[in-house]
This record gives sequence, C-alpha cells and structure tokens, in this order.
Amino acid sequence: MWEDKVRKVVPYTPGEQPRINNLIKLNTNENPYPPAPAVRERLKDLKYGDLRLYPDPNCRLLVDALSGYHKVKPSQVFVGVGSDDVLSVAFLTFFNGDVPILFPDITYSFYDVWADLYHIPYEIMPLKADFSIDKNDYLKENGGIVIANPNAPTGLELDVSVIEEIVSKNKDSVVIVDEAYVDFGGTTILPLIDKYENLLVVRTFSKSRNMAGLRIGYAIGSEKLIKYMSDVKFSINSYTMNMPSLELGKLSVEDDEYFKTTCAKVIDTRERTKKALKELNFSFPDSRTNFIFAKYDGPVSRDDIAAELRKRNILVRCFNGERIKDYMRISIGTDEEMRVVIEALKEVLR
Amino acid sequence: MWEDKVRKVVPYTPGEQPRINNLIKLNTNENPYPPAPAVRERLKDLKYGDLRLYPDPNCRLLVDALSGYHKVKPSQVFVGVGSDDVLSVAFLTFFNGDVPILFPDITYSFYDVWADLYHIPYEIMPLKADFSIDKNDYLKENGGIVIANPNAPTGLELDVSVIEEIVSKNKDSVVIVDEAYVDFGGTTILPLIDKYENLLVVRTFSKSRNMAGLRIGYAIGSEKLIKYMSDVKFSINSYTMNMPSLELGKLSVEDDEYFKTTCAKVIDTRERTKKALKELNFSFPDSRTNFIFAKYDGPVSRDDIAAELRKRNILVRCFNGERIKDYMRISIGTDEEMRVVIEALKEVLR
Repeated sequence: MWEDKVRKVVPYTPGEQPRINNLIKLNTNENPYPPAPAVRERLKDLKYGDLRLYPDPNCRLLVDALSGYHKVKPSQVFVGVGSDDVLSVAFLTFFNGDVPILFPDITYSFYDVWADLYHIPYEIMPLKADFSIDKNDYLKENGGIVIANPNAPTGLELDVSVIEEIVSKNKDSVVIVDEAYVDFGGTTILPLIDKYENLLVVRTFSKSRNMAGLRIGYAIGSEKLIKYMSDVKFSINSYTMNMPSLELGKLSVEDDEYFKTTCAKVIDTRERTKKALKELNFSFPDSRTNFIFAKYDGPVSRDDIAAELRKRNILVRCFNGERIKDYMRISIGTDEEMRVVIEALKEVLR
Repeated sequence: MWEDKVRKVVPYTPGEQPRINNLIKLNTNENPYPPAPAVRERLKDLKYGDLRLYPDPNCRLLVDALSGYHKVKPSQVFVGVGSDDVLSVAFLTFFNGDVPILFPDITYSFYDVWADLYHIPYEIMPLKADFSIDKNDYLKENGGIVIANPNAPTGLELDVSVIEEIVSKNKDSVVIVDEAYVDFGGTTILPLIDKYENLLVVRTFSKSRNMAGLRIGYAIGSEKLIKYMSDVKFSINSYTMNMPSLELGKLSVEDDEYFKTTCAKVIDTRERTKKALKELNFSFPDSRTNFIFAKYDGPVSRDDIAAELRKRNILVRCFNGERIKDYMRISIGTDEEMRVVIEALKEVLR
C-alpha cells in the first residue's frame, strides 16, 4: 500500500486569516502599520517583463541590504520565505545527531512540529512557574538548543548574558536564538555573532517590518553556519525568494527611520495597553514584544472572553496547552484598535 | 563538535543568472515572452497596505483558479514556491520507505539531490541509448517512481499509455510525473488523475506561464495525496506563497488565450530551430519542450562551441554527465534570438 510509505505528521495550525471587513485582527502578531512608503512606490514600478526570469538565487539585493544594516559579511546572512522557512532549514541542517535537542515547553509551537517532521529527537524543558527559563536546563548534553527571545507566546525576555552563558557552554551544539520579536524593545544577541561560531540568530520581516504578506525571514551567524544552511537550501529549492520579495524587502531595510518610528509606536501602544489591562484585572508576563499574553483574574473564563470579543469582530489567539489555557495572546494594533478592545473588554467583564 | 551534527549535502547547481545587457539567455528554459497582460495591470494595483498581513495559508485564490482550469476539486490541488518546492515536499512526504525509489540516469538533476538530502534510498535506471525510458525498469519493487515527461534535459516524451502502465502496475508506490514542460506540445496524464490514487502530476509557472520570477508550482492528485502533502507543508512553513504570487498567478491562469498563444509561438520557433540546427549538422532527441538538447556531429567540441557563443553574449546550458557531455541544452527564445544564435553557430562552425 503506497500509504505505508507516507510521512505522517501533525501539522502546525496557524492563526486564522479571515478576510472580514472592519475586523480588529489581533491574533497573528501582524503589524498595524503598512510597510515603508518606498515599498508603495516600488510596487507600482516593479519590472513586469522581468517576472519571466528566475530571480537571483543568491538573493544579493536583500542579503547585501541586511549585511550592510547589521554590519556583518554577506556570507553571514541567509534569507528565506519567512522565518519559518529559515528555522525549518536550520533544524534540518544542524540537528542531525542522536542526542535530543532542547527547547521550552511554552514557546513557538512550531519547534516540536519541525522536530517531528525531520525525525529529530527532542526534550522539552518546562519553564519556571513565572514562565522564565531556567538556564541550568540547557547546560546538559544535547543535540542543539532553540530559544525564542523574547519568548512567544509569553512575551518574556531572557537576559542576553544568560543566553550568552548557554551558548558559550554548548560549543558542541548549534544554539538558535529566534529573535522574531526583538525589535519591540528587546536586546539582541547579534553583537556576539562573531564570538560564537555556533550561534545562529533568526529574524523575520513579518512583525517589526510590517511585511508578513511578502514572506521574508533571515538568519545571521558565522560563515560556516550560513554555508551549511545554504547548501541545504540549494538542495531543496534553488529559488525560494521571488522577485517582489527581494526588491521590496531591500527597501524596508533601507528606511530605518520608518522602521524605528513604527516600532516605537507599537511599543508605546503596548505600554498603554498594559496599564489598561491591569486596571481591568488582567495579569501577564512583562511583554517585550508586539503582543501581551494576558490572563483575566476574575470570574469569566478565557474562552468566554475570546468568544465575546469575536462577536464584536475582535480576534485574539488562544492556545490550549495545560499551563496556558487561561491566557489569551493579544497582538498590539493601533491606538484606536486597542481603545476599542479595552472598551469591549470592559463591556464583556462588566 | 557542533559540525558533527550537521547534515552535509552536495547541493543542486542552478543555471547562471547573470544580469548582463543584451544577453541572449538560453540556459534556464525561461520563456522569452512576458507574463499575461493582466499581470502588468495588477502589479500596479496590488494592495500595498495588505502586505502587512499574512497571506492566505490555503492559497485559495490560486488553488481555486487552478482547480477550475483543470476541472478538479480544490482539494486535489497543492501549490508551492515553484515546482522545486512542490517536488521537494512530495519526496519528503511520499518516499518514506526502505525500498529504493527509481528514476532515470539522465533527467532533472535535482531528483538525486532531494533523495540524498532526505536520506531516501534510490536506484538510478539508465535510459536506453536513444535516451528513451525502458518501462520494464519500473515494474520491479520500489519505494516510489519519478518520471519527468517530457524528460529534461533530453526533451523526449514518453507515450502516456506507457506511463499509465507504470502507474497501474505500481499501486504500492506513489508515481510522480513531472510535467514541467508538457505545455509545449506534450500530452498530459492529468485526465487519469481520478483513476489512480497513487499518481501525482507536478507543474510549474516558470516555463509555459512566463513567471519564473514569481516562484509558482503546483501538483494535482487524489485528495489523499494532496492531504498528505499539505500536512507536511504545514509542518514546514504555514505561509509559503506570498501575496503577489497568489494574486498574479491567478491572473495567468485566467488568460488562457495568451497562454496558448505564447506556447504556440515557442513551439513554432522550436520547430524552425530544429530545422536550422539539423542543417548545421546537429543531432538531438525530438523535443516536445521549450529547449533542444543538441550535439554537434562535427570536429568542434561542445565546450568550444558554448565558449564561443558565450563570447557573443549567448548563454546555453552544458551538463557534465558521461553520457551527455557532448550535448548542450538550448532554450527556445524569440524568433529573433534564435536567428542570432543560428548565425553565431554558423560563424563558430565555419
């Protein structure tokens, strides 16, 4: 039977992407602001005729922009179809041993999916009760380590010095630091990239760069790490990044003022939302991201709150793990969107 | 050492993508004509603001267009980032057994790369001396079968009835038919898709749909096959197709007249090029694709001819396998481009 030879997996379930008018969509951590203005101009101006040609397999436009921005060599930059593609290639490339890789129980829920898919052994390290990482969990023998920092869906940041300790004490493994949310006030470990050959930092254009629709992610690491990943990438698909992504992604990197301004706006809105949620009797880990992972400390269940919000055209994300079943993850929208959400919560919890 | 845990591979080498002015680029089988005119209009008109949002993970715009076009259910269509992405997912999904999969020695040179990458055992079946497939090679026990039809880089077509026999006698394996080039005068096996649950047909927008720069490929098969592939895809990357690809790909499918007209032009140019090459003492398998796999039957070596063409800004593709080291693959460009190529060859071979 042909089905006996099928790789059977339980896929990751992404957040809903309904296209409903007037939806306040706070369920997938998208940025409420559009991409940099230059993207709007270039979009009108992309060379239609060039679409018949394969894009540059080496993605130089985008790689060079990122290498300039982060002051690393182009050979230290890997780009992919969103950070999911980048992480997937990294898992496949670096976690090819027999000893389990390590990551927290509450983190990006794709990590165990990739491990299952690629038959990578893994061991899940429970976070402490306050959702923080116990560094000692990561000082034993392992096949690799993955840490999202700031973590998702908790929003909590681990001090970079602690991550450095984990990296420096694991010279025999690749340590992936998934910095999808770092631009919203977190501290990056990137300055240590030349110090540790085994450190890979992964980023995305989907959150802080307002470009989830273009699918761009990247990794920065030692030239050796990037070369190994590129070899694997060129063994999967020579041309992953299409022409619009390369052209438009570059423009985002070039407009640093817009980038910093919109990040600052999101941070500002987040801090105001934190205050408002506290007043409504919500508690949450202190977020350094573009979302708040909030629990209502009162007599209404999370699922009831989420359902009531949904009736009001507000979408938030609920995960079902035992330790997080009372929490909802609320992405940070515009000030006006968050005002509507807080008003709706007041109504629901009245 | 962290490098002990690295998956080490020899990647596929894509054809060069130099950006030189006035280059006659006949090395990667791109289409000489631009995408459908509606693509040009929509490009100016893509919703900039929507780029901040994740694209539809189910790719409905494009899947629905293809399902309507091919008269199959949407649940029988899988789309990916070029047919390389689609094939890579298919290899990972369906070839998970211990018995070797089978494919020809001379064929798309990515097949063995994917097999190596995913640790899939494989056995290479040499083509006959005339580059045709011996069907008997594919009637023994196997873990799966991959046949490009028409084949690349030979351009030769295998009769659909022979492929049907291979599919029908291999109910315990998935048979992938890679129809990347079928639109240039080949006969598709698609009408048999509902008859054989184990038959997967793979297509690309990069050749006949003039859209290599957007990275779109697809597969059609039984609902079961497509469901298994989708599960694997959603275990790699939830959002592989970006917004421009979904929007613009749909428009290509909708303009069937443009599609058929440009394919007919390429076929017409190919037939004229065949005649001219024969007159110059080239021989080649009879191509049903947008390229000709040609060998010069005279006292100048292939590599010398290719080098001379290159000096004249004409790029063709040379592969180095023992049986094909005298051949060059010449993609079909416009009539004018092929006229220039033939003139150049006359000069070189004088």
